[in-house]
Amino acid sequence: MADEKVAVVLSGSGVYDGSEIHEAVLTLLAIDRQGATYQCFAPDIKQHHVINHLTGEEADEVRNVLVESARIARGKIRPLSQFDADAFDALIFPGGFGAAKNLSTFAFAGSDCSVNEEVTAAVTAMRDRGKPIGALCISPVILAKIIPGATLTIGQDAGTSKAIVAMGGRHERTDHGDVVVDEERNLVTSPCYMLEATISQIADDAANTVATLLGRVR
Amino acid sequence: MADEKVAVVLSGSGVYDGSEIHEAVLTLLAIDRQGATYQCFAPDIKQHHVINHLTGEEADEVRNVLVESARIARGKIRPLSQFDADAFDALIFPGGFGAAKNLSTFAFAGSDCSVNEEVTAAVTAMRDRGKPIGALCISPVILAKIIPGATLTIGQDAGTSKAIVAMGGRHERTDHGDVVVDEERNLVTSPCYMLEATISQIADDAANTVATLLGRVR
Repeated sequence: MADEKVAVVLSGSGVYDGSEIHEAVLTLLAIDRQGATYQCFAPDIKQHHVINHLTGEEADEVRNVLVESARIARGKIRPLSQFDADAFDALIFPGGFGAAKNLSTFAFAGSDCSVNEEVTAAVTAMRDRGKPIGALCISPVILAKIIPGATLTIGQDAGTSKAIVAMGGRHERTDHGDVVVDEERNLVTSPCYMLEATISQIADDAANTVATLLGRVR
Repeated sequence: MADEKVAVVLSGSGVYDGSEIHEAVLTLLAIDRQGATYQCFAPDIKQHHVINHLTGEEADEVRNVLVESARIARGKIRPLSQFDADAFDALIFPGGFGAAKNLSTFAFAGSDCSVNEEVTAAVTAMRDRGKPIGALCISPVILAKIIPGATLTIGQDAGTSKAIVAMGGRHERTDHGDVVVDEERNLVTSPCYMLEATISQIADDAANTVATLLGRVR
């Protein structure tokens, strides 16, 4: 099969308060390289906060998740409220703290987190249609919260893997190059920058994850 | 030769007011894939302006070039004022309007533009040592302004190529995959998003440019 359509959900632009930029760009590259097409989406909401990426400190600024995500998408992005599961073959979430701060409250509430309702609706709609969902880095925690019993990986971080178990999921410890597949629930996850990594390892992880995801499009 | 050290000069984070994010990330990827190492730099100055990348309109915000560039570099970036040409084998400028709005005034003044003095100092220091300099997309206009008689490419845009000639340079028309080398001045340029492009074409252009650049490190 060729020309699969993949929806990519972004959460801002920058590892500490949005989408991790390398993971996002290299996911888009992997989709294009493998002959599929992508459309970016993001919720039209305020970021939880803005982090100065030079100092690591919180900045006294207000930014919007959709508007900042548009930087990665070169303006070609749509509000997540417009996502139509019938129009796409697969859904994927790159990582970055935005997944745990904007798409969910995992960074603050751990296993007691809530998930943005448009994100929940998109994941649920794909699940209802049996379509595959991918997640990189910290984003699998969103799937753990929404999908009971999901088998996922976030690499090797003890606290995060415990939280996945506390949400009712199963965690598989992984290294770079590994992709975890939940066959029953049609989920594909990989660790990316949840492990110490070079940018080439991120490119490989994104390519492996996208290949596995596209291989599950029926 | 392996372990070449490449300095990458960023100009913000986002195509319309900073570094083009795909070009920047894929330049870093190409450097890492080819066995060299990179260090990102950016001037510690205010951005010319902030563009809402969803609407294309100017936003009433103030952002700093170094701080925003840090998003692409995951915080690992240094002020361009600290650049030491003796510590690097090559210098490269990804594209994006930031090159023409923050690193220079080309977007507003064309061939009458001025170039940020730290950028001029970095380019001049590399030139004095005979070390190669690369530039993608619109960034070659900076080299045209600083280096008399430079042979460069920005793809096929008539207005921009005329401006390069007006600054005393020579322009070679190119398509994707092409890299223009100025043998005498040790400059390597390619068109990237100055041409309509897929993200895979940008990855190829960045890889070709970096390979050519590293091949010229003595």
